Amino acid sequence: MRNALIAQSGGPTSVINASLVGVINANKKTRYYDKIYGGVNGIEGLFEEKIIKLNNLSENELKTMKYSPASSLGSCRYKLKHFEEQGREYQKIFNLMDELEINTFFYIGGNDSMGTVSKLSEYAKTNDINKQIIGIPKTIDNDLMYTDHTPGYGSAAKYIATTVLETYFDSIVYKNNGVFILETMGRDTGWLAASAALAENSETVVDFIYLPEMKFSKEQFLLDVSSRLKRNNNVYIVVAEGLKDENGDFLYKMSSKQHDGFSHTQLGGVCNYLKRLIIKNNITSRVKTLELGVTQRCSMHCVSGIDMKEAYKAGKDAMKYSIQGDTGFMVGIRRIRNDPYTIETFKIEASKVANQIKYFPAEWINEQKNNVNDLAIEYISPLIRGFSNYKSEKGIPEYCSLID
Amino acid sequence: MRNALIAQSGGPTSVINASLVGVINANKKTRYYDKIYGGVNGIEGLFEEKIIKLNNLSENELKTMKYSPASSLGSCRYKLKHFEEQGREYQKIFNLMDELEINTFFYIGGNDSMGTVSKLSEYAKTNDINKQIIGIPKTIDNDLMYTDHTPGYGSAAKYIATTVLETYFDSIVYKNNGVFILETMGRDTGWLAASAALAENSETVVDFIYLPEMKFSKEQFLLDVSSRLKRNNNVYIVVAEGLKDENGDFLYKMSSKQHDGFSHTQLGGVCNYLKRLIIKNNITSRVKTLELGVTQRCSMHCVSGIDMKEAYKAGKDAMKYSIQGDTGFMVGIRRIRNDPYTIETFKIEASKVANQIKYFPAEWINEQKNNVNDLAIEYISPLIRGFSNYKSEKGIPEYCSLID
Repeated sequence: MRNALIAQSGGPTSVINASLVGVINANKKTRYYDKIYGGVNGIEGLFEEKIIKLNNLSENELKTMKYSPASSLGSCRYKLKHFEEQGREYQKIFNLMDELEINTFFYIGGNDSMGTVSKLSEYAKTNDINKQIIGIPKTIDNDLMYTDHTPGYGSAAKYIATTVLETYFDSIVYKNNGVFILETMGRDTGWLAASAALAENSETVVDFIYLPEMKFSKEQFLLDVSSRLKRNNNVYIVVAEGLKDENGDFLYKMSSKQHDGFSHTQLGGVCNYLKRLIIKNNITSRVKTLELGVTQRCSMHCVSGIDMKEAYKAGKDAMKYSIQGDTGFMVGIRRIRNDPYTIETFKIEASKVANQIKYFPAEWINEQKNNVNDLAIEYISPLIRGFSNYKSEKGIPEYCSLID
Repeated sequence: MRNALIAQSGGPTSVINASLVGVINANKKTRYYDKIYGGVNGIEGLFEEKIIKLNNLSENELKTMKYSPASSLGSCRYKLKHFEEQGREYQKIFNLMDELEINTFFYIGGNDSMGTVSKLSEYAKTNDINKQIIGIPKTIDNDLMYTDHTPGYGSAAKYIATTVLETYFDSIVYKNNGVFILETMGRDTGWLAASAALAENSETVVDFIYLPEMKFSKEQFLLDVSSRLKRNNNVYIVVAEGLKDENGDFLYKMSSKQHDGFSHTQLGGVCNYLKRLIIKNNITSRVKTLELGVTQRCSMHCVSGIDMKEAYKAGKDAMKYSIQGDTGFMVGIRRIRNDPYTIETFKIEASKVANQIKYFPAEWINEQKNNVNDLAIEYISPLIRGFSNYKSEKGIPEYCSLID
């Protein structure tokens, strides 16, 4: 008996289930694993042996799941400590794997989860345990090292660009429109905010994009806005939630009560902070804001066809690599060319990816440090192409979840 | 020479341009009017003679415009006073119409705009001016009297139901999820918030929907939330921005500085008010909020096919009725049956519609006053059906505007 286990971790994406179904469908062809188990709520659920069987899902159920947003197996935000510190947690997981004759654990997640992949495989090696731990990338943040981009990013970028375009048209209808500020996610990096540059109506519609990678100057911001408002009837601004001031401190922090499980500072509301700044400085009192929030990571109805395809391929290729016997790696994406857009996957050691951050490149930021340039657009543009046909009944999509 | 004028007013919708193109295309067939002019920024623009010609738009331009969100001709929020008070404004408009040999003025708008239609036609009658003023309904709020529903509502309802469904799946992934509160527009009425009831995963996913038509009791709300949270791992709540307390006062007001042109109180943020209420009362500290904001009225990428069709028909039939010679009316929609869903248009005096509000029916609210019932679902469901093919290039839609 040779079985496999799959679990999902971190913030969901629109295509995280496509990777899950990719693994399952690839095994249907190869029949390499006898049974595939799903771990509910990531490794946090494994400690409680929250396991379900994934073998009996019908073609139809798998298809609905592939096109369903958010982690069908549930998720967690749990940072595994090193096994010298917390060996019992490792024992629990490997005991469970033994018990269920699980040879391979596929973990779909971001950089914290790749830390888990790396630590579990290191523990296995150290203790001569012959089991494979394989990481499948997913994060809308696009901040994983070594991979050209991450599954989940393209769909978030498409949703952001589409919503920016639509709200731009909404924001110009009056005689005096003032300032519109849209806030994207992005605690450390500007990949999501940068995707707003793809919104175009003959030319890009966004006046300014501010990323966490730019040191934000309030004075320069107020100058940017006021000078543009003198020329135009409207100013459209996109900001990442994690904007930092000249000292590297977050421009806007919520109270410390509102930390998430990983104890990063949970952000939100920088758009309203900037609104108050503009009004206080008498630039204009007409300022509208929009915080996209979780819609960025679950808007399957606006998914990128390319992203969907690649997330599925990442799962499928994880299965392929598992048959080759390696462990402790993440499936990466390598871009071969843009025209026609072509990628391939490769294996990269999870330890290299773990807990690192891929920042938005300085050379893709304009000279004035208030927007991105054509290099950024060239990079992001292929990732948002194509549409995807989710099931729809009665005018709204038909989705499913294994934990509902 | 017999010409026509079209203008748009009030908050945009996703399908307001479909009505505009409906008028233009109907005239292409009948050639009843020699020229069609567009008034920029509604009647506010007419005072400044902001007029553009709409005759030379190509088939292709008209098609792109039909599928573009937000008022292509720009909009205004201008409340015309009675002509005994402000006769000069009326003279300006009718002088302009004389000058351009305009016989008919089509005004696309909500209840304030129907007030304008009513007053202008009354002025014309009183002064023996032989000109027609015709109203075409549009508002996502669905609060116009006499018409079964308004163009714009179906698309907003579809976007809300879709987003509720997607964020619901996102909101259940963790072991302890807490409360999710989504805020829709709806200052006076609950039509938009009620559409969240259409989000379903075998059954409706929303636990509670609170409308401005229900007198909101904080105590009952806290009881609702805490008792549901004892049974479930998550509570999903939808609220309209205009929730009122037992005294009929808005639950949450922004500072008086932030009034819009019509000097209604501009709302927003009731979801965060309720979040603070839940936390303060120690129900749970896990509360997420999402304010949909203007995305509700411009998300063409999630438009309802039925709504698009009906908005176009409202424009087309306005042209038909104008040939019959009537004035001072609005094009209404009458629902003939639900299965198969069938409607027809009819004429209703604009004076009856003007400045009135159609509230969400009390008999469509559940006994506990914390949700809507099946009658509401039956009414809304047909309006969100069908999809619509906007043009798309490079993965995002291609839109246009006449004022950009």
